[in-house]
Amino acid sequence: MNRQSLQRHLSTLSAVLVLVLGTAAGPAAAAEKGMMDIIKEVAKEKGVLGVASFDAQGNLALPEGYRQWVFVGAPVTPNDMNDGKAAFPEFHHVYIDPGSFKQYQETGKFRDGTVIVKELVSVGAKKGASGNGYFPGEFTGLAVSVKNSVRFANEPGNWGYFGFDAENGKSLLPTAKAQPTEACSPCHLKNAAQDLIFTQHYPVLRAAKPK
Amino acid sequence: MNRQSLQRHLSTLSAVLVLVLGTAAGPAAAAEKGMMDIIKEVAKEKGVLGVASFDAQGNLALPEGYRQWVFVGAPVTPNDMNDGKAAFPEFHHVYIDPGSFKQYQETGKFRDGTVIVKELVSVGAKKGASGNGYFPGEFTGLAVSVKNSVRFANEPGNWGYFGFDAENGKSLLPTAKAQPTEACSPCHLKNAAQDLIFTQHYPVLRAAKPK
Repeated sequence: MNRQSLQRHLSTLSAVLVLVLGTAAGPAAAAEKGMMDIIKEVAKEKGVLGVASFDAQGNLALPEGYRQWVFVGAPVTPNDMNDGKAAFPEFHHVYIDPGSFKQYQETGKFRDGTVIVKELVSVGAKKGASGNGYFPGEFTGLAVSVKNSVRFANEPGNWGYFGFDAENGKSLLPTAKAQPTEACSPCHLKNAAQDLIFTQHYPVLRAAKPK
Repeated sequence: MNRQSLQRHLSTLSAVLVLVLGTAAGPAAAAEKGMMDIIKEVAKEKGVLGVASFDAQGNLALPEGYRQWVFVGAPVTPNDMNDGKAAFPEFHHVYIDPGSFKQYQETGKFRDGTVIVKELVSVGAKKGASGNGYFPGEFTGLAVSVKNSVRFANEPGNWGYFGFDAENGKSLLPTAKAQPTEACSPCHLKNAAQDLIFTQHYPVLRAAKPK
C-alpha cells in the first residue's frame, strides 16, 4: 500500500467512523443513523445479507468478481464420456463467496447468505505436455445457488437455484429468476454430501471444515 | 465490519501511518525510516518482492493461504489414461497470487515476483449424480514456481521451480530448494503458451488478459 492509497483508506475509514461511532457524541438522529449502520454491518457479517443481489422482482443479479472467490473443486463430466450429452458439460469450476468460506472454516456450515457459483468450461484438449487427460477450453455457462432463509423459506435447505445462460448459448444474462423447486433441489437433496452441496467433490471445503 | 473490528483496523492503520507519514514532521532518522517503508511498500506493489518467502539458503517457504488465491484452471491427467503413471497425477489445481493476478489483468504479463501454485489432487470417483467423468478426491502434492529476475537471473524466463512433496508421499515439506534447470524449464519452454506458463489450459487467465 503506497502513501496515496493509505490516505484514501484513511479518508474512507474516517467517513465510516463518523457514521458508526457517531452514537457516542452525536445527537439522537446521528445515533439512530449510526445504529442502523451497525445493524447492517452485523447483518452482513452474519450472512443475513451476503453478497447476492436481488431486484424488486426477486431476480438474482449475475454475481461479480466470482473468479476471485474461493475455488472449491472442478469435476469434469466430458461429453465424450456421456454419449455426447453430459448434464453439465464439461468442467465445473465451483466457487464459494469469501465471507461464507471464512464462516465455513469456523463453523463447518453454510451460513445464511452463502453464494455458490458453478462456471462451466468446455474441454479444450485431451492431450498436453503432462499426458493424456482433459484440459479446460472456453467458458460456456454459469449457474448459481444462494442460501437465504427468508427468500427461500420453503425450499429444501433454503437454497435457491439460478441459471444465467442466454438462449444463444454464448452470453450470460444480467439477471436470472429462481428455478422451480423440482429443477435442481431433488438431485441435490438426494446426492449431495452436506446441506445440498456436493462437498464429496470439493476437497478445498473438506480440508477447510473444522475437525 | 463491526465496531470492534473497525477499531482494530484503525489502530493498525494509525501505527502504519506513523511509520509512513513520519517523514512530514519527524527528525532525520524518522524521515529515513519512513522513506524505507515507502520504498518497501512500492517494491512490494511492483512485484519486486512479491509473496514468495525465501530463507538465507535460498529455500522457498511453503506458501500460505494459496487456496484463497486466484484459481486459473484444473487440467486432469488421470492415471487410468496414462498407463497408471501420469507425470502429475491427477487433477492439477493451479493458482496465481492475487497481486500478480491484478497486474496480469492490467498488463497481460507475469510480473517479477509472480507465484504460481500447482496443487495435485487424486481422482476420487468416476461417476457422480451429474454423469460419468472425473471427480476430485484428496490432496496429494504441491509444486510452486516463482518468477524472480534477481534470484533466477540465469533461468529461462527467470522462473524457479520447487517441489514440496515429502518422501512419504503424504505430507508437505515446510521449505523446498530450487529444482535444477533441466527438471522443469525445458518442458515449460517448449510447450507453454506464454512466458513458460501453460495459459492454453487456464481459461481464467486468458479471459483476464487485456485485449
